[in-house]
Amino acid sequence: MSSLVRFGISLDGELLDRFDRIIKAKGYATRSEAIRDLMREKLVEERWEQGTGEVAGTITIVYSHHTNGLGDLLTDLQHAYHHLIVSTMHVHLDHDHCLEVLVVKGRPDEARAVADRLTSVKGVLHGRLTLTSTGTELL
Amino acid sequence: MSSLVRFGISLDGELLDRFDRIIKAKGYATRSEAIRDLMREKLVEERWEQGTGEVAGTITIVYSHHTNGLGDLLTDLQHAYHHLIVSTMHVHLDHDHCLEVLVVKGRPDEARAVADRLTSVKGVLHGRLTLTSTGTELL
Amino acid sequence: MSSLVRFGISLDGELLDRFDRIIKAKGYATRSEAIRDLMREKLVEERWEQGTGEVAGTITIVYSHHTNGLGDLLTDLQHAYHHLIVSTMHVHLDHDHCLEVLVVKGRPDEARAVADRLTSVKGVLHGRLTLTSTGTELL
Amino acid sequence: MSSLVRFGISLDGELLDRFDRIIKAKGYATRSEAIRDLMREKLVEERWEQGTGEVAGTITIVYSHHTNGLGDLLTDLQHAYHHLIVSTMHVHLDHDHCLEVLVVKGRPDEARAVADRLTSVKGVLHGRLTLTSTGTELL
Repeated sequence: MSSLVRFGISLDGELLDRFDRIIKAKGYATRSEAIRDLMREKLVEERWEQGTGEVAGTITIVYSHHTNGLGDLLTDLQHAYHHLIVSTMHVHLDHDHCLEVLVVKGRPDEARAVADRLTSVKGVLHGRLTLTSTGTELL
Repeated sequence: MSSLVRFGISLDGELLDRFDRIIKAKGYATRSEAIRDLMREKLVEERWEQGTGEVAGTITIVYSHHTNGLGDLLTDLQHAYHHLIVSTMHVHLDHDHCLEVLVVKGRPDEARAVADRLTSVKGVLHGRLTLTSTGTELL
Repeated sequence: MSSLVRFGISLDGELLDRFDRIIKAKGYATRSEAIRDLMREKLVEERWEQGTGEVAGTITIVYSHHTNGLGDLLTDLQHAYHHLIVSTMHVHLDHDHCLEVLVVKGRPDEARAVADRLTSVKGVLHGRLTLTSTGTELL
Repeated sequence: MSSLVRFGISLDGELLDRFDRIIKAKGYATRSEAIRDLMREKLVEERWEQGTGEVAGTITIVYSHHTNGLGDLLTDLQHAYHHLIVSTMHVHLDHDHCLEVLVVKGRPDEARAVADRLTSVKGVLHGRLTLTSTGTELL
C-alpha cells in the first residue's frame, strides 16, 4: 500500500446533500468511502474493456440437476478450464434447481470464453459473468 | 444554484494515480469534475429505480422505412404519448434504414412504457431506452 | 433483403406462457417479432464488443446553459468530430437545463471517444452513450 | 415440468446466419437453446424489476483482509441477514486480497439491501449484485 493522500473537491452544496442521502441509505459510514467506491468501479470497468492484464470475476449459473448428464458435462468443462477457475460453490435451490458460482481469475477474454461455454450448455437456464478485480488495482 | 461547498477525501496515492490516468484519457480537465460526474450518475440511477418524480430519457429506434405502414404507425404511437415526448429527430442512415431518437420527459414508468411500445413494433429492428435526468437533481 | 426462412424451436410450455405474458405487456403483436428483437439485440452487442465495422449510436448529454462558454465549447467539440456526428437535437428542459442528443455513426472506438470527450466537459451534468446499429446487420 | 411445445418463427435468412455465427462462437449446440436462453434472460430481468416474488442472486465482494476488524464486521453483517444468505465462498486472491461470493435468495428489495450494506463497508474495494433466478420461472 502506498501512502495516503488527501485532496479536496468543490461542488454545489445541494448536489452533495442529495448524494449524501443516497449513500446514507446504502449504509456508507463516510462520504470518502462512497467516492472511493465509485472510482474503483470505474477502474474495474476499464480493466475489462482493455482486455489485457489479470482480472477476477464470478460466473453464476442456474440449472436443473434432472437434466441427463448435465452434472458430468459441467464438471468436464470446468476441468478443461481449471487454470482459470479458482473454485466453485454449489447451492441446492430447491428439489430441482441448482445454483453454481465459479470464481475465475485470468485474462478478460478467457474469462468471457469460459462464461460463454458454461452458459450455452443445454440445461443451464441462466448464466451471468460478473466483472470484478483481483484487487491489486483497487488498493 | 445553491452555494459551493468544498470537502476533502483521503485515499491511497496509487488508487488516485490510476484513476487520474483514466480520466485524463477520457478528457476530464479536473478530478473534481470526474468525481461530480460519478456522483450524478448515481443520482440518475436512483431516481429511475424509485420510479417516482420526473425524469428525462431518450428512446433510440432503428427501422427500415420500407416496411409497409410503419411510418404511419410510429407517428400514431408517438401522438398517443405526446404528453411524454418532447421532440423527435430522424436520421436517414442509408437507403433503407432510419434512426429515430425521441426525447421523453415524465414519470419513469411511463417512459418505460412508451419505449416498450415503440420497440415492440414489427419493423423496428432495435430499440433502447437511455436513462438520464431533467437536470434538476444534478445541479 | 434475403429470403425469409422459417425454423421451429421446442421448449417447455410453461416457459413459453411466461414469456408470452411479458411480451404482451410490452405490446408485441407476435412472438416471432419479440424473438427477432432478442436476436438483434445480441448482434448489436457483439458488433460493439468486436470494436470493428461500422456502428450507429446516440450520445445524450444534459447540461446547464448558464455555464459560461459551454455552448461554444460543445459546438467546437462537435465540429472536431463532424465526420462521426450525423446530427444533433437540442431540447430546452426548463429555464436552466438543456438536453442534447447526437446521432453518431462510425467505428465503435471513435464513437466511444467522442462520448467520453463530451461527457467529461465541465458543465455537462450527465452523459450517456447508447449502443445501436446502422441497421445493416439487423435486416 | 410441463409438456414440451413447439412453435415456428419466420425471419430473414441473413439475420439467422449472423445470429448462428455468434451462438456457434459462444458454444451453443442448437439454436433453440440459444433462443430459450434469451427468453429466460428477459424473464429474470422482469422478475427483478417487479420487485416481488422470490429471486436468487449472488453478491461478489473483493476486500483486503489486512483492514482492521473487517473480517468480523463482514461476518456480523452476514449473520444479520442470515435469512437471505444461503452460503458464502471465500477465495484468497493473493497475499492481501480476498474475494467472497454470497448466494442470496429472497425478495429483490431485500437482496439489494444486503448488497448495498456489504458493498458500502470501508475496506470492501468492490461489490456487485448479480441478478439471477431460483430457476422456478425458467423451467
